[in-house]
Amino acid sequence: MIVILKRDPDREQLESLIAWLQEKGIIIHTSIGEQNTVLGLVGDTSALDVDLIAALDIVEDVKRVQEPYKNANRKFHPEDTVVKVGNTQIGGGALTIMAGPCSVESEEQVVAIAKAVKASGATMLRGGAFKPRTSPYAFQGLGAVGLEYLKVARQETGLPIVTELMDLSQLPLFKDVDVIQIGARNMQNFDLLRAVGCQDKPVMIKRGMSATYEEWLMSAEYVMAGGNENVILCERGIRTFEHYTRNTLDMAAIPVLRKLTHLPIIVDPSHATGKSWLVAPLAQAAVAAGADGLLIEVHNDPAHALCDGPQSLRPEAFDPLAKKLLRLHQVMRELEG
Amino acid sequence: MIVILKRDPDREQLESLIAWLQEKGIIIHTSIGEQNTVLGLVGDTSALDVDLIAALDIVEDVKRVQEPYKNANRKFHPEDTVVKVGNTQIGGGALTIMAGPCSVESEEQVVAIAKAVKASGATMLRGGAFKPRTSPYAFQGLGAVGLEYLKVARQETGLPIVTELMDLSQLPLFKDVDVIQIGARNMQNFDLLRAVGCQDKPVMIKRGMSATYEEWLMSAEYVMAGGNENVILCERGIRTFEHYTRNTLDMAAIPVLRKLTHLPIIVDPSHATGKSWLVAPLAQAAVAAGADGLLIEVHNDPAHALCDGPQSLRPEAFDPLAKKLLRLHQVMRELEG
Amino acid sequence: MIVILKRDPDREQLESLIAWLQEKGIIIHTSIGEQNTVLGLVGDTSALDVDLIAALDIVEDVKRVQEPYKNANRKFHPEDTVVKVGNTQIGGGALTIMAGPCSVESEEQVVAIAKAVKASGATMLRGGAFKPRTSPYAFQGLGAVGLEYLKVARQETGLPIVTELMDLSQLPLFKDVDVIQIGARNMQNFDLLRAVGCQDKPVMIKRGMSATYEEWLMSAEYVMAGGNENVILCERGIRTFEHYTRNTLDMAAIPVLRKLTHLPIIVDPSHATGKSWLVAPLAQAAVAAGADGLLIEVHNDPAHALCDGPQSLRPEAFDPLAKKLLRLHQVMRELEG
Amino acid sequence: MIVILKRDPDREQLESLIAWLQEKGIIIHTSIGEQNTVLGLVGDTSALDVDLIAALDIVEDVKRVQEPYKNANRKFHPEDTVVKVGNTQIGGGALTIMAGPCSVESEEQVVAIAKAVKASGATMLRGGAFKPRTSPYAFQGLGAVGLEYLKVARQETGLPIVTELMDLSQLPLFKDVDVIQIGARNMQNFDLLRAVGCQDKPVMIKRGMSATYEEWLMSAEYVMAGGNENVILCERGIRTFEHYTRNTLDMAAIPVLRKLTHLPIIVDPSHATGKSWLVAPLAQAAVAAGADGLLIEVHNDPAHALCDGPQSLRPEAFDPLAKKLLRLHQVMRELEG
Repeated sequence: MIVILKRDPDREQLESLIAWLQEKGIIIHTSIGEQNTVLGLVGDTSALDVDLIAALDIVEDVKRVQEPYKNANRKFHPEDTVVKVGNTQIGGGALTIMAGPCSVESEEQVVAIAKAVKASGATMLRGGAFKPRTSPYAFQGLGAVGLEYLKVARQETGLPIVTELMDLSQLPLFKDVDVIQIGARNMQNFDLLRAVGCQDKPVMIKRGMSATYEEWLMSAEYVMAGGNENVILCERGIRTFEHYTRNTLDMAAIPVLRKLTHLPIIVDPSHATGKSWLVAPLAQAAVAAGADGLLIEVHNDPAHALCDGPQSLRPEAFDPLAKKLLRLHQVMRELEG
Repeated sequence: MIVILKRDPDREQLESLIAWLQEKGIIIHTSIGEQNTVLGLVGDTSALDVDLIAALDIVEDVKRVQEPYKNANRKFHPEDTVVKVGNTQIGGGALTIMAGPCSVESEEQVVAIAKAVKASGATMLRGGAFKPRTSPYAFQGLGAVGLEYLKVARQETGLPIVTELMDLSQLPLFKDVDVIQIGARNMQNFDLLRAVGCQDKPVMIKRGMSATYEEWLMSAEYVMAGGNENVILCERGIRTFEHYTRNTLDMAAIPVLRKLTHLPIIVDPSHATGKSWLVAPLAQAAVAAGADGLLIEVHNDPAHALCDGPQSLRPEAFDPLAKKLLRLHQVMRELEG
Repeated sequence: MIVILKRDPDREQLESLIAWLQEKGIIIHTSIGEQNTVLGLVGDTSALDVDLIAALDIVEDVKRVQEPYKNANRKFHPEDTVVKVGNTQIGGGALTIMAGPCSVESEEQVVAIAKAVKASGATMLRGGAFKPRTSPYAFQGLGAVGLEYLKVARQETGLPIVTELMDLSQLPLFKDVDVIQIGARNMQNFDLLRAVGCQDKPVMIKRGMSATYEEWLMSAEYVMAGGNENVILCERGIRTFEHYTRNTLDMAAIPVLRKLTHLPIIVDPSHATGKSWLVAPLAQAAVAAGADGLLIEVHNDPAHALCDGPQSLRPEAFDPLAKKLLRLHQVMRELEG
Repeated sequence: MIVILKRDPDREQLESLIAWLQEKGIIIHTSIGEQNTVLGLVGDTSALDVDLIAALDIVEDVKRVQEPYKNANRKFHPEDTVVKVGNTQIGGGALTIMAGPCSVESEEQVVAIAKAVKASGATMLRGGAFKPRTSPYAFQGLGAVGLEYLKVARQETGLPIVTELMDLSQLPLFKDVDVIQIGARNMQNFDLLRAVGCQDKPVMIKRGMSATYEEWLMSAEYVMAGGNENVILCERGIRTFEHYTRNTLDMAAIPVLRKLTHLPIIVDPSHATGKSWLVAPLAQAAVAAGADGLLIEVHNDPAHALCDGPQSLRPEAFDPLAKKLLRLHQVMRELEG
């Protein structure tokens, strides 16, 4: 950590700061410049509160040198994390395709879609039982019943299921789910993160609409700090000034996270853009950029989907896309050599 | 609601759409233009799903004419809502000043600050017992004990207390709190919103970091749909590209919300900027723009605050500011005539 | 165009508005709803000023149905535009690779790089002679001399050259350039756009850092309105809250523009991210998403580049990337098959 | 400047970097930490290129300690700059009110408005002769003739005039203007900035829609580096995700710039929001936050304004607002004591 002092800092306050830091085992290197004096703090600075030091009268600015996350940090864990889910895995070179309806509507619907997407090459079934909806008057999902339908679909197809947990009071219902999804709006619901960190199912954390990479990784850190190392990150678009698409899919997140963390990275082109005709080109781009997998909405009748209709593909459109993505993934691996 | 059709829409699909709408009691006005045919839907369109219609093959775009919120909408409720809290009120012409520490640290601390801010003119005490922190390794608040200290401070000063609820499991602890605060990161925690809508304490909803006015009002709508009409909105800055300040305080939110809703509007200049030297000018601006009140962090020793230090004022700095704000509020009322 | 009236509009003002519109040859369809009356305007509404109508006392909102750009609009020009440049072309199925140094530094440098990138598969040479620099104290480019060096490199390699025009006073110097680049900071320098619209060299318009798709296409419209149809669009990242990368590359721009316009689309992953290690994954993604080409910085000694060092690849790194991109482009075409 | 090295940096490269820095007269303080080695560079680092150093293989990150602007920096010029314009001044305690039409339409119009705004308390006349318009098909201003009408209005009222320069080729026409305005879209048109830096009229620089404070101050630095010290900064809103208002007025810019620079600060609430009913509350807020002045659009018939109609006030609405602002400014000065 680097502490930039104001010009002519009060000597007494400076000595008191130095003493306080030394007490905490920090070694201090002082550089006296023409404009400013700079303190370089060496040692375990992760316990120091940047804001606290920045608030001191004699301090102009504080700059962190180390990342604030540890468990999620590739520097301390160089090998890729591979998350095992049922008979499949996320990360480690395979391409995971999670497909299914935004919202579970009936047993027939979800079983039919599950069969279709499995035949096309999907490796996991996604579907929402509890749905976060902007309006209190909109359909909020089937709840516990929806989870049951997902399990039926799993039994019929063998596809592991991933579904969203909205509140920690619902956690007991998720005992038999394969991957717990934390939605973008809950990315900083810290009580929820702590709760899923204290159980052992894999957790997929969607990026908050205005979350930086660091904040996102800190949310992963919450889960990992509780002992659950099976965390998956899902880029789903960030909020920008451009409103033609619902959000702006941040493709750079894939290689950036690859560098910063060892956790697997999934991309959701359906929610990111809110338009089904953008799903294919962006899914292809994600594979070419090195994503570990995709989360794609598939609905057997998008025009009658109870929610998020515009971003769903029909099974007939998903089939050639899934095949193309798998072929592209293979080509990319060959090109990497 | 206005539905813009693609050129040469499939006739059968169009007839099916029209029949479906008419079934729902919607009257349709058709305008055939050179480029596009436009359907004007008249009737109660609030039950129609914009996304669902937009997903149809024959539809190019759908534009809503009416706001999706009702209870929070000034159009249906022209008079200002005044929220009564203890012996004070929020809205209705008075200037509410909520002041206190970001985080409750000890009984002595919170009682001392409560006495100081009351003497300076504050009308409510704010303080966090449960703290949302980006890092799992940071101080997370005193929890239930912190709530007790706040109540002691209330008893000593008579100031009603406002404090943040982070998870619905904590709700029983909040029975004796005066105003429940929903934090920015929980603005779209819909289960939490529903829960506070089913109890009768006033609820102050902070704007999410990337929430539009409409999304914010929809969160108020969640609470109001449950029967709780005592909702207060708190602007605390939005996330933009400018990172010199922590967030960008959106001053236009005050007059915009005044037009769109009847709910009272509070401004938090402390969290918005993250710098204590910006609190005074922005608090003054908020009063001049017509805010119903302010939420200001005050700490008796900012350099040792356990969290959010840089944005806290000392009581000595808060005192002249509070007096200035009250005087400014009076002048503004005189100038409004 | 759709005009939503306020409730109970003043009858006289309404009649006056209707008369004024009819005078302009507009046909009006009126829908009287429960909340609002809506006017549907049919005819050539492109000459109507949305802001002007929105300013009327009786009007609540105005929504446009048609895009404000015509020449750039795919609706009126369904076939892809193919821009011919020297013995190569941009658009029409080929993959254009524009490569070269951010800044021209010497004849030796630019000739050496030109030879290297040509050998690797680049089809055009890029290089800056006039450089927009944030600081007045930074190197501003070699100017006219830099253009001469670029021409030497073209003569030696046969690669057409693309270089940035910063001010219309420099236009005479660009007579012998192959493609004129308009930089992101000048995307709404309307005098400059008009000037390059009145000459016949192809123009590549970089997206402004905070430009919407529509604003970007309106800038293309400026050039095309002057008679120059050879316009190329270049996505180079938009400004968002995420500052780990310099900008956020908006990959969705590729398929969105493909739908909205017939103009070719180039992607610049170097400037977008500002980090050379992000160039390869994002360039691959752009090809997989269907871009017509790439603009890639290559420098023979990035550590001594006079500007924009961090985002430049060395020729040794560019060579396998260019080959990979060309192979990927071929695979994508086969997969589209 | 602080250079953070990667772990185990190549020794030879490190020695070469240190030698290169020492050659430039930089003194280096080295801090060896557990994770990283940090170099503190002392001396005149303003000539060093951050990007260049950051591009080195051994470097992880570079952080600047000093601001890159000098002439505009309050640290080196503690007293407020006061810009003298005709018989009035900008900065130095007075409240400047620049008022007038967005676009000059006729001599009668601009003279009538000038007389009206003068009577209400305005101290300068603003009006556009050259207009930057997003569409090539929109009215582009009266040009040179418009400037003549402004001069007539100045002669009739004595109000100095401020008007926008769009291209340096128009500069000779601006010889007799009082303040040259550089528009938001040209904030980084560096050739234009250089040109107005080499003449002696005061220059008002509007903030670019996505410009940081630092970039804005660097644009002021361009003008000042040319020898022109009479620079005024005008906040006019930044582009964010919130589209209810045209832009988001950044009120914190006032106190932030007050700290960073000695230049006067003007606020434009008309363009920032694009809605005339938001002008009054935001203008009041700007005065309460300490702005040196306001730029307000006034039109005698907003419904027929040729551009930017929705954000214009009528003289009847401007009159009480101007009086209120002047009174509020006086009260604020009294409250400051």
